[in-house]
Amino acid sequence: MIIAIQCADELGLVASISGVVQKQGLNIISMREHVDTEHQRFFVRLELSETGQADSIQEELLRILPPHAQVLVNPNPLKKIVVLVTKEHHCLGDILIRNHFDTLGAQVQAVIGNHPDLKELCERFQIPFQWVSHEEKSKEIFEEELHQAIAGYEFEYLVLAKFMRILSQNFVSKYPLRMVNIHHSFLPAFAGANPYRQAHERGVKIIGATAHFVTDQLDEGPIIVQQVTPINHSFSAQAMMKSGREIETAVLAKALKLVFEDRVMVYGNKTVVFE
Amino acid sequence: MIIAIQCADELGLVASISGVVQKQGLNIISMREHVDTEHQRFFVRLELSETGQADSIQEELLRILPPHAQVLVNPNPLKKIVVLVTKEHHCLGDILIRNHFDTLGAQVQAVIGNHPDLKELCERFQIPFQWVSHEEKSKEIFEEELHQAIAGYEFEYLVLAKFMRILSQNFVSKYPLRMVNIHHSFLPAFAGANPYRQAHERGVKIIGATAHFVTDQLDEGPIIVQQVTPINHSFSAQAMMKSGREIETAVLAKALKLVFEDRVMVYGNKTVVFE
Amino acid sequence: MIIAIQCADELGLVASISGVVQKQGLNIISMREHVDTEHQRFFVRLELSETGQADSIQEELLRILPPHAQVLVNPNPLKKIVVLVTKEHHCLGDILIRNHFDTLGAQVQAVIGNHPDLKELCERFQIPFQWVSHEEKSKEIFEEELHQAIAGYEFEYLVLAKFMRILSQNFVSKYPLRMVNIHHSFLPAFAGANPYRQAHERGVKIIGATAHFVTDQLDEGPIIVQQVTPINHSFSAQAMMKSGREIETAVLAKALKLVFEDRVMVYGNKTVVFE
Amino acid sequence: MIIAIQCADELGLVASISGVVQKQGLNIISMREHVDTEHQRFFVRLELSETGQADSIQEELLRILPPHAQVLVNPNPLKKIVVLVTKEHHCLGDILIRNHFDTLGAQVQAVIGNHPDLKELCERFQIPFQWVSHEEKSKEIFEEELHQAIAGYEFEYLVLAKFMRILSQNFVSKYPLRMVNIHHSFLPAFAGANPYRQAHERGVKIIGATAHFVTDQLDEGPIIVQQVTPINHSFSAQAMMKSGREIETAVLAKALKLVFEDRVMVYGNKTVVFE
Repeated sequence: MIIAIQCADELGLVASISGVVQKQGLNIISMREHVDTEHQRFFVRLELSETGQADSIQEELLRILPPHAQVLVNPNPLKKIVVLVTKEHHCLGDILIRNHFDTLGAQVQAVIGNHPDLKELCERFQIPFQWVSHEEKSKEIFEEELHQAIAGYEFEYLVLAKFMRILSQNFVSKYPLRMVNIHHSFLPAFAGANPYRQAHERGVKIIGATAHFVTDQLDEGPIIVQQVTPINHSFSAQAMMKSGREIETAVLAKALKLVFEDRVMVYGNKTVVFE
Repeated sequence: MIIAIQCADELGLVASISGVVQKQGLNIISMREHVDTEHQRFFVRLELSETGQADSIQEELLRILPPHAQVLVNPNPLKKIVVLVTKEHHCLGDILIRNHFDTLGAQVQAVIGNHPDLKELCERFQIPFQWVSHEEKSKEIFEEELHQAIAGYEFEYLVLAKFMRILSQNFVSKYPLRMVNIHHSFLPAFAGANPYRQAHERGVKIIGATAHFVTDQLDEGPIIVQQVTPINHSFSAQAMMKSGREIETAVLAKALKLVFEDRVMVYGNKTVVFE
Repeated sequence: MIIAIQCADELGLVASISGVVQKQGLNIISMREHVDTEHQRFFVRLELSETGQADSIQEELLRILPPHAQVLVNPNPLKKIVVLVTKEHHCLGDILIRNHFDTLGAQVQAVIGNHPDLKELCERFQIPFQWVSHEEKSKEIFEEELHQAIAGYEFEYLVLAKFMRILSQNFVSKYPLRMVNIHHSFLPAFAGANPYRQAHERGVKIIGATAHFVTDQLDEGPIIVQQVTPINHSFSAQAMMKSGREIETAVLAKALKLVFEDRVMVYGNKTVVFE
Repeated sequence: MIIAIQCADELGLVASISGVVQKQGLNIISMREHVDTEHQRFFVRLELSETGQADSIQEELLRILPPHAQVLVNPNPLKKIVVLVTKEHHCLGDILIRNHFDTLGAQVQAVIGNHPDLKELCERFQIPFQWVSHEEKSKEIFEEELHQAIAGYEFEYLVLAKFMRILSQNFVSKYPLRMVNIHHSFLPAFAGANPYRQAHERGVKIIGATAHFVTDQLDEGPIIVQQVTPINHSFSAQAMMKSGREIETAVLAKALKLVFEDRVMVYGNKTVVFE
């Protein structure tokens, strides 16, 4: 059983929280706590040995915690997700293999693409694929159609696995902190389009990828995972892109693992990640 | 203020410990907890916002914890160390620079070498250096002399910064869990002598270094930090050694930081490291 | 066009080789050369801008090079492979996705398993799967059946993608330097069985994986790629295994890329890898 | 003996160059070649087994190479450097230790600081230190004084080891491709002032450092080495700075090694690094 709490910091929080847990006869296997002293904000994640009564624990926790506490007790251990894609297959391929062998930590409900290219791959795994084209229509209409397609499924998270359309503030606001994106750069370097071309021209010696929650600020949402891979003068922009796809796949996989295990909390524009 | 506890696991430990802390009006800035479920062993490290009365806190903790609990309350934040060396300068140079600018987290009381080569470096920093030769005497006598030299100083830790003599079980037992060694290999690969020669002959693509506590089992003590660096066919055994020195320096520096900040606990032959 | 040469070192090799290339009006895009001075052995790999007449280039090179030179001119840019598996899917899944999207640098001709578990995955990609059970038969007979199954396909390399049977010297000798294996450890640490269990018990802070050519010495063949990933006290042997699978997948993928691009040469028990 | 050449690419360059070398009876130990196909630019670095007659080799190479070729034959294997610093000691400490034990690959002629703080450290190693204050004078006058101080020494490279004054285009143009700087960020992310503060506010999960040649574009010169180190939510801006100093020290050390071994060539705003 997992408990994840975020609230204003005050004296004795750990004592009161662990008191609640103890009263239920549950043992704490692992506990990670962080206080952001700058913002007086308290974060804790507990793994308990057994599963207690989620409702009564949550109720009691809310009673003893400061106002506006965010309390998550025993979240669904197997998340449901919808995946958005465009044409590139590397992240989706990795997700579908993991999904197929039950090692993703989530169940893929459907894949939605603004191009039809990846339909074929989804069919191989009997995963529903919907093509919602963005062509010959306004962004408003495209997003409305996308929203309709998504609405057909139950899910906790929308995973943007190389979905290459910029989404409006209006769309993003429908799924607050529920959209995870993989950005093909080590943000904040090379935000925006063609990061590999930019990186190649600048002659950098490292490229990276960033998995982040999507907010209305393009490429500016809370960062979950970042990793890099070394490159050198012998890499063409093309070779950098190839190398970049490997790191994108790895970074998105790691971020999803952390998110699905309820190890990521967001405050302001930052994350606390209890790895 | 730091509190570090290790004891048998039982229900409600976190609640009782944080209760003790709360009663003193202290706030927990950061808390790291680990339960080794295999051995039913509980580990916790707390950083508190202020410094309370160490003695009474320790007393109260010992009262509520299971028998044989190891409780460290407010350890000396500035450790004292004695450094043992042979001829190689890279780790000692790094330690002396950090010591000189007060960024080591410890104060070097003295350096003792079984060769006189590094005396000159120590003198540049006004650090006492003692030469205890191992030549033309039995191991027993050498170790007795070494022990005498060490005994002249107050210290929490003995740091073996490329000290290339094998110490007897008798000597090691005098400083249980107080000797930190840097081993010039990614243990357990290439334990023993000439690891770079061994690695070169095997054609490995990575070399590493291991910082560990010294126990009576040569190269077998609890591991604190391990890191690696890539190599390739173009590295001679000589070049690997050079590259190895860089990683040895970095790994020992990191291990000392962790040890000096009381982030490392030992149980059995393993460490719990709250980074 | 690729040229890869390995021979005894002597004066003027680069001059003569590049003279041969120049006479054909070909330009060298990239050249990597290595001399093993210990063994007086010369290695070179050239990438040429265009494709010349492979046969006449090879003939002329053999004429000017020292006796017993190994000369590879314009090897098949798209290798054919047969994959051996047991039950674990992670490496095979990665290979099949890359194969499907033509980014593997090789074409999977067939997958052969000593268990039937991965048949279903292969069928999703229309890749022939053969089940050759090792049960209730001698190793000799099993290997003969395996050999028969393999013999049905044309291929340059046999890829052991978590194939968990130890192969006899007799079998291995049939495919010299044509079998690539992924070993679930950072060799030479934890060679043999249950490396994650061993690593967990030793309390190491890093685990790794090794891709190597298979020779008759178990786990002792020439190493192609090694990489590691950090772990800590919070990892159970189970969690280490999970983490290990990620690094195994990445290391095998990288090794295959290098091998398929003819960047790996073997001499004695070591590789020269022109990354 | 080292030969490093950069010139317009044309057919048969490797053949002609190695022909020149062979005529002198020299053997090539290691050869690294790169063609920038986009700019039709050829780069090569040769390590020869013995030392031949540099003058006649250079003359002959210039005769056979395309016009405007840059040819370096047998550069001084032990470079001379002048180091510029401000107040921070970590990079200078590392350089002085290496210099003292002859492992730097260069000889430190002098250290010049715009603050006097590091004089004491230099004196410990009998390295001349000059204080050139920037206070209460125009940038023009400061730079003229700095230039005068530098002019008192013979050197191949100026190393900016955490020198925190921005230098004018006029000053920089006096030492083209001879100034190596360590930038406290993984460029191009967080160029400019207070990168750790910026990184902390952005919530990044990795910080890095960049060693580069200084050109008139601030923080925009050709990159030599970049490396990163992982951070997380528990790092204060202060802790990030500490961690950053470690990576700065390591990255500058690596860049200097490469530059001093004549492994770095510059073209346009990029480097070719033959590691």
